Amino acid sequence: NIRLKLPAVCFIWQIAMIILFGVFIRYNEESDAHWVETKKAKNLTDIDNDFYFRYPSFQDVHVMIFVGFGFLMTFLKRYSFGAVGFNFLIAAFGIQWALLMQGWFHSFHSGKILIGVENLINADFCVGSCLIAYGAVLGKVSPVQLLVMTLCGVTLFAVDEFIIISVIHARDAGGSMSIHTFGAYYGLTISWILYRPDLNQSKRLQGSVYHSDVFAMIGTLFLWMFWPSFNSAICNHGDGQHRAAINTYLALAAAVLTTVAISSLTKEKGKLDMVHIQNSTLAGGVAVGTAAEFMLMPYGALIVGFCCGIISTLGYVYLTPFLEKKLKIQDTCGINNLHGMPGIIGGIVGAISAAAATEQVYGAEGDTFDFTGKFAKVVPHVQGGYQAAGLCVALVFGVGGGVIVGTILKLPIWGDPADDNCFDDEVYWELPEDEESHSVVLE
Amino acid sequence: NIRLKLPAVCFIWQIAMIILFGVFIRYNEESDAHWVETKKAKNLTDIDNDFYFRYPSFQDVHVMIFVGFGFLMTFLKRYSFGAVGFNFLIAAFGIQWALLMQGWFHSFHSGKILIGVENLINADFCVGSCLIAYGAVLGKVSPVQLLVMTLCGVTLFAVDEFIIISVIHARDAGGSMSIHTFGAYYGLTISWILYRPDLNQSKRLQGSVYHSDVFAMIGTLFLWMFWPSFNSAICNHGDGQHRAAINTYLALAAAVLTTVAISSLTKEKGKLDMVHIQNSTLAGGVAVGTAAEFMLMPYGALIVGFCCGIISTLGYVYLTPFLEKKLKIQDTCGINNLHGMPGIIGGIVGAISAAAATEQVYGAEGDTFDFTGKFAKVVPHVQGGYQAAGLCVALVFGVGGGVIVGTILKLPIWGDPADDNCFDDEVYWELPEDEESHSVVLE
Amino acid sequence: NIRLKLPAVCFIWQIAMIILFGVFIRYNEESDAHWVETKKAKNLTDIDNDFYFRYPSFQDVHVMIFVGFGFLMTFLKRYSFGAVGFNFLIAAFGIQWALLMQGWFHSFHSGKILIGVENLINADFCVGSCLIAYGAVLGKVSPVQLLVMTLCGVTLFAVDEFIIISVIHARDAGGSMSIHTFGAYYGLTISWILYRPDLNQSKRLQGSVYHSDVFAMIGTLFLWMFWPSFNSAICNHGDGQHRAAINTYLALAAAVLTTVAISSLTKEKGKLDMVHIQNSTLAGGVAVGTAAEFMLMPYGALIVGFCCGIISTLGYVYLTPFLEKKLKIQDTCGINNLHGMPGIIGGIVGAISAAAATEQVYGAEGDTFDFTGKFAKVVPHVQGGYQAAGLCVALVFGVGGGVIVGTILKLPIWGDPADDNCFDDEVYWELPEDEESHSVVLE
Repeated sequence: NIRLKLPAVCFIWQIAMIILFGVFIRYNEESDAHWVETKKAKNLTDIDNDFYFRYPSFQDVHVMIFVGFGFLMTFLKRYSFGAVGFNFLIAAFGIQWALLMQGWFHSFHSGKILIGVENLINADFCVGSCLIAYGAVLGKVSPVQLLVMTLCGVTLFAVDEFIIISVIHARDAGGSMSIHTFGAYYGLTISWILYRPDLNQSKRLQGSVYHSDVFAMIGTLFLWMFWPSFNSAICNHGDGQHRAAINTYLALAAAVLTTVAISSLTKEKGKLDMVHIQNSTLAGGVAVGTAAEFMLMPYGALIVGFCCGIISTLGYVYLTPFLEKKLKIQDTCGINNLHGMPGIIGGIVGAISAAAATEQVYGAEGDTFDFTGKFAKVVPHVQGGYQAAGLCVALVFGVGGGVIVGTILKLPIWGDPADDNCFDDEVYWELPEDEESHSVVLE
Repeated sequence: NIRLKLPAVCFIWQIAMIILFGVFIRYNEESDAHWVETKKAKNLTDIDNDFYFRYPSFQDVHVMIFVGFGFLMTFLKRYSFGAVGFNFLIAAFGIQWALLMQGWFHSFHSGKILIGVENLINADFCVGSCLIAYGAVLGKVSPVQLLVMTLCGVTLFAVDEFIIISVIHARDAGGSMSIHTFGAYYGLTISWILYRPDLNQSKRLQGSVYHSDVFAMIGTLFLWMFWPSFNSAICNHGDGQHRAAINTYLALAAAVLTTVAISSLTKEKGKLDMVHIQNSTLAGGVAVGTAAEFMLMPYGALIVGFCCGIISTLGYVYLTPFLEKKLKIQDTCGINNLHGMPGIIGGIVGAISAAAATEQVYGAEGDTFDFTGKFAKVVPHVQGGYQAAGLCVALVFGVGGGVIVGTILKLPIWGDPADDNCFDDEVYWELPEDEESHSVVLE
Repeated sequence: NIRLKLPAVCFIWQIAMIILFGVFIRYNEESDAHWVETKKAKNLTDIDNDFYFRYPSFQDVHVMIFVGFGFLMTFLKRYSFGAVGFNFLIAAFGIQWALLMQGWFHSFHSGKILIGVENLINADFCVGSCLIAYGAVLGKVSPVQLLVMTLCGVTLFAVDEFIIISVIHARDAGGSMSIHTFGAYYGLTISWILYRPDLNQSKRLQGSVYHSDVFAMIGTLFLWMFWPSFNSAICNHGDGQHRAAINTYLALAAAVLTTVAISSLTKEKGKLDMVHIQNSTLAGGVAVGTAAEFMLMPYGALIVGFCCGIISTLGYVYLTPFLEKKLKIQDTCGINNLHGMPGIIGGIVGAISAAAATEQVYGAEGDTFDFTGKFAKVVPHVQGGYQAAGLCVALVFGVGGGVIVGTILKLPIWGDPADDNCFDDEVYWELPEDEESHSVVLE
């Protein structure tokens, strides 16, 4: 039962982490006490330490991962503990494994992984994809299943990202492809395999209450506000980070307006639906992830946000019910609308932007596409092809990984809730005995 | 009806924005891919990019605009969706128009508006004034009215700000005059024109419930904590930003103590009133807006906060009821107490501080007042007069603009709620059907 | 009665602050308008201003103090106003006194205290210790008692810190000793002296309700996310801040996993307890406070977090009931588990790390331990002894100060609530009359 499995997994995993960190992980030259020598050797000052370029963005990303994703999922009337609590657990669990996996691929020098603030950001990004996947199965799986899903998800992500970024040499600063597309289709495929035909037995718990919708808006707003930091966090210093923040700010603003418009248009009496406001307003940030650092132009960012607000909201209205009925995919949070489709659009926008790049716009000396080393001879329209290839890789890893992991999670050993106990914190949490809880549950 | 009007306005507006951005808005030299050439030409490094001086402050301001203002208004028992949701809508709507309006006045070069992080901050500031105005009419207007109010408010703000900052050459880093005074009297005048004699028909919904007051404290605290960033965000690099943050920190701390004192003194049995704690504690930040970058001295900042905590709380106790009964101004959030009077005080403090400036205190080479170009020969006591003139301009624009816009909003075409439906999310939102909602509404 | 006492204390105190600030406090050279001359004299640029090294961390710390501590204590069903409101009051009150007290000890030059952003951070740290102490007496004292407790606490803290940092020359960047150990035992000793044998008369109000637990998670997460900024805020520029952030990030992640494991293990049916998740997940950040800037190594940080998650959670399960029954210490928030024991562990980890330092690891030129001036000849194992001495000083000040202040607070003049009125906002706040409140209280 869960009494033994959950603690056992946590302990074993955490001890494994300590051992692996002991063997592999050290500080990089900017976080090591020998920095004073590095400064002298390279004629730098303290302010040149990457910490000062990236730490504020890192903290914003950190808030998105823990408060943003966590609170966005608190909208269910009786699953707020699970939303914010399990989000916390799997993110804390995943970032450690992500530091190792990504470290082996990208920061491995003389047998050691050397870490600094950029690694912390990338680890947060990596678990971000698993938290997206959590949205599809919210309320229907046990914490042990979530840990397995995260462990495998981080592993798949790291390989996926290595292929996209290092092998194919696609650019993906805000992770439209590697984070959002991968995470969404990973989660949706798992949800498809874990399909529950009798899920309507817990229908009474599938909605929100007034206050839980307000809690969810905390998540929405922190995601929305800090998304410019998300997309700019690991961009090139200087104009790269600056431009990525501007583009994301604009795409998100446009998405709010079209989300409100479509939400009102598709509802009786023109009322607004909180589900749309909580989710589709964010689609602009997802879709501008890949191209945020490119010379997308401010109007380009607005167009991306404009389209994604529409598509995402229409997805909630028409596609989510269709997926559930016809394709047997139960998507609790509608991640296909928030991360799946906008992620694909983001990949396509990135490919088109890259293919259309000109020296006049990017400058002869610009390093936006990092055409150096063995990629020194790449030209923009070829880069556009690389970007498109990256999107395909993300989709393949998402669906393929989801099939494998979903099959593992279908084994009857993980302590998942019964159909009539889904979306209920009672199963995994000591709940306070308040009147309110009785009335809501009895209702 | 709203079903068509709200989507129509959103769509038309967003498409207009895309076109105007396409024609006018480009990246400035710090966010453009040619930054690498700028660096060489000006002998700079990446850390000299304005992004690193202002981005952390920008993000704090962003949080104030979306979470701060949004959650501050969630205190009503049944208008939290409208508070946080419409705040989100009009802010996202307004920042785009603000980038254009402010851009034409301040960042227009060879036919293009060149934007960077400072423009984003200023756009947030600009919509801030409209969100203040929203506080006066909260619960009594339709979203379409809010959009019109914001569209006109941003336009007025940009002209107002241009006159105050560029023509008169007053300094107003934290916007006591241009943001708070203008926004408050703009909103109050509109509320005066939209006066509803039978508003007590929705009296049952005008109060808070326990949890909605806690939600509102999220707004209060994020505003309070990040106000030092608000007042320092667009100050001069170096000592200007540094001093503005210190002064604001101190003024806010003092306001908390006097707010608590007056709240307790004026209530039966000395109990504290959440309305005061939620609002008047912030008055110190408003009132120190103009002078935050000046050599106000730490004790000067404390004195400003001390006075404003008192005045603002007394305003809630005595002035708000008076305004409603005698002057027919219904001010839902009490913005006259939080932004109106403290904003005027801020303008006066700024004028006095500027007039009293000496070379000994400010240094011979200091650039606090930017006495350059055609203002090179201005002396402090003249600058004091300029500051006072700026305050008058803000008041004139607020009241004058409010009269015009209020008259437009009085037309019976905007779908505003009936008197017995005010302060009720039911009118514009799909609400979850929870027991709690019934009981509260039936009560 | 409170009607006069609370306003009187607030007014007198705030006026005293204005006078003392007028006499003593001025801007330092980085926040003064003469910075332009400093820049020239020292050949600096604006980005070298300490503001840009520390302001983002300052804002994170500010959020921890006001939102983190404030919301962490909102878990009680009927004391959320008191939690977040009194936290706000005493923090705003304490930071002003802290600027003076710490200023006299550390920033006093030619008769003036010269302040900059580092002083603001230190003032926030200082009140942090008093807010920790508030956790022990939450719901059982009056606001006037809290103000007295904070006034004395800040004074004790400043002396304590001066002895630890300047006299003994122990390092304590994240304050495991000076903030957490001192604050926890200060609060626990006061709670011991104020022991209420009949506290179970208000037992009906001692638990949480569903939504109050979600509110508390806001506090938990903002503390958890921003703790890397807390521990790195006043570290040395460059590698010091960088390394402290990394170590704290890792220790916190490990603590989450062991907290979940122990919580599940010790509860019937393996369910998780929100109290543990809200609190013990943070113990890793406390325990790594002293050693965060040392070359603790990433695996070392994980080990610290691993142990503290276990110890802290076991403390909630077994030690808190024992302390209440046997030692007559009623610890509302369990601060002994979150700050007390982890703080002591942090002090010990710091002593061991310092004693074990080698030139190979820290570099010949490293300045981690600041072996300069009269401490130029200190060697690591001696520094280890200094660290241990610092821990003892913090304990002595905590317990000793607590005895004195607790005795003062026991005088029957402070308007504290009756035993059957504890944990009830009704006593000090105007409450909205909502149905919900009746039902909960009557239950």
